[in-house]
Amino acid sequence: MPVINQVAIIGGGVIGAGWVARFIENGINVSIYDPAIDAMEKVEAVLENSRYAYARLLTAPRAGEGEIRFKDSIANAVYGAELIVESVPERLDIKQNVYAEIEQSAEPGALIASSTSGIMPSDLQANMTNPERLLVAHPFNPVYLLPLVELVGGKKTSPDTIERAREIYTAVGMHPLHVKKEIEAFIADRLLEAVWRESLWLVKDGIATTQDVDDAVRFGFGLRYAQMGVFDTYRVAGGEAGMRHFMAQFGPCLKWPWTKLMDVPEFTEELVDLIAGQSDEQSGHMSIREMERIRDDNLIAILHGLKGNNWGAGQALAKYEQHLLKAANDD
Amino acid sequence: MPVINQVAIIGGGVIGAGWVARFIENGINVSIYDPAIDAMEKVEAVLENSRYAYARLLTAPRAGEGEIRFKDSIANAVYGAELIVESVPERLDIKQNVYAEIEQSAEPGALIASSTSGIMPSDLQANMTNPERLLVAHPFNPVYLLPLVELVGGKKTSPDTIERAREIYTAVGMHPLHVKKEIEAFIADRLLEAVWRESLWLVKDGIATTQDVDDAVRFGFGLRYAQMGVFDTYRVAGGEAGMRHFMAQFGPCLKWPWTKLMDVPEFTEELVDLIAGQSDEQSGHMSIREMERIRDDNLIAILHGLKGNNWGAGQALAKYEQHLLKAANDD
Repeated sequence: MPVINQVAIIGGGVIGAGWVARFIENGINVSIYDPAIDAMEKVEAVLENSRYAYARLLTAPRAGEGEIRFKDSIANAVYGAELIVESVPERLDIKQNVYAEIEQSAEPGALIASSTSGIMPSDLQANMTNPERLLVAHPFNPVYLLPLVELVGGKKTSPDTIERAREIYTAVGMHPLHVKKEIEAFIADRLLEAVWRESLWLVKDGIATTQDVDDAVRFGFGLRYAQMGVFDTYRVAGGEAGMRHFMAQFGPCLKWPWTKLMDVPEFTEELVDLIAGQSDEQSGHMSIREMERIRDDNLIAILHGLKGNNWGAGQALAKYEQHLLKAANDD
Repeated sequence: MPVINQVAIIGGGVIGAGWVARFIENGINVSIYDPAIDAMEKVEAVLENSRYAYARLLTAPRAGEGEIRFKDSIANAVYGAELIVESVPERLDIKQNVYAEIEQSAEPGALIASSTSGIMPSDLQANMTNPERLLVAHPFNPVYLLPLVELVGGKKTSPDTIERAREIYTAVGMHPLHVKKEIEAFIADRLLEAVWRESLWLVKDGIATTQDVDDAVRFGFGLRYAQMGVFDTYRVAGGEAGMRHFMAQFGPCLKWPWTKLMDVPEFTEELVDLIAGQSDEQSGHMSIREMERIRDDNLIAILHGLKGNNWGAGQALAKYEQHLLKAANDD
């Protein structure tokens, strides 16, 4: 029996559409509400990518694709859904209004999961009638390929909600990371924000082009981060002397004037022009479609490679395939 | 004809030994000077890893291993070397003293390359007789597997020095990134420093354990960074609307209180205990040796996967193999 049969997605942007892909590829039916005129077209573009990707990612037998239905209202979309995914713009008032509408029509037991990358769940749930069933389930683009999903509960979120969410996301091949203490931007986006801010300074100050920054990442530490994180990488670098030794060595460097600690660069017209221009020069010869395909092919190759070693995201993929195999045998 | 025949490595720590491995695996002879009693043993441990790695990394025919000779002085180590790699501790005075000793015995045409991860080459070369031949060539651990090397010239470094360095490092399978403007910590380590600082805050504030931080990286954006960097990743996320649109969306978020901008956490005894303890819990069941092997196996799998797609670090590997093949045929 599938872990869940019916999901509603409110908002069909790149994240919402990524969720649609993740769920229908796992045989789960999805209802979508998005008022944009081109919503269907945008979702279809993501699905074209995800179908291509899943055909190459998985060797295990899978259930057929879930059905997709576009609905003309939130009420119609959430009808019968066991999980309601909110992927609307990052404004608290918009999100709270959406929850009010959801709560009028949702099944009493349905989970409500926000894809927000920054807003605290306690704020999201502040005006809800049944706040215990709201959580943040923050995914990463492309949602249909990257396993990470950060689960964050607010003050009023029930432990059952977190447990049920963990079960659902694991069943669709993801790696739920329960963030135990609320904080804006959670864990991954705090790190990404730090990298982004520093990258902007490097370009603004003329130290590096966008291409230089990207190459510094993908020919260097990006290869490390795909399999060991920050602390394990340094643990290994510290050698047998251990983490304590590493910190003793590295620690004082934090006092060096190595990063632009204090400040955030202004998004002046000039900086936007500089970055957009350099980015065009770097990758303007490819369409976004081509870049998405390259990215996905690379992610699949990396995941396959790590699966061969039964490590990290590859281990998550192996478990997912075992789960699919078991489900197919149980049928 | 090999691009270079004889290299001297001053300092046989994890970086110096990584350089030894990179060069001898490419058939280049290496002389080492390191006053530590256990220097030979430590270098041998790295070579055991690199021999295992190269046997799996490369399919192209290679020259035999270069010879290794441990020398009892800097003068004896640099004798006859065309490239002298300085990998001694990160203190300007120590490094400047080493250069003074190097210059007394080095060949007039020898390059002097510092592995420093932070000190500006203009400072390094300040007291040198022939400062035009000094540059920073900053590698990443494990040096024998990660292709990135940042080349940074100081005010007195000649363009020929940078060109020659680019030629040498390319020939041993690396991706030289010329950092055109001097800055402390160059490019990659500024980004790494930003991640490290934010990671420390997350652990110190009890938001995340070291394991949580590592999982947030390796199940999520780390997989992206192994193949596209910061700007290309966001370019794709922005969709057909382009980089300008992405920045318009993302830009204002920089003003949110998302990262600990102002401050660096103090390395109190308490914080060191917290991190070392969590790290032990996370990975203490593995020896550093085991972790190195896992890391290297994963890096090889990722590089092979990306080579299959002829992309990024995989493309660098493919070029390297073509170079080796050509060298073998020329013999």
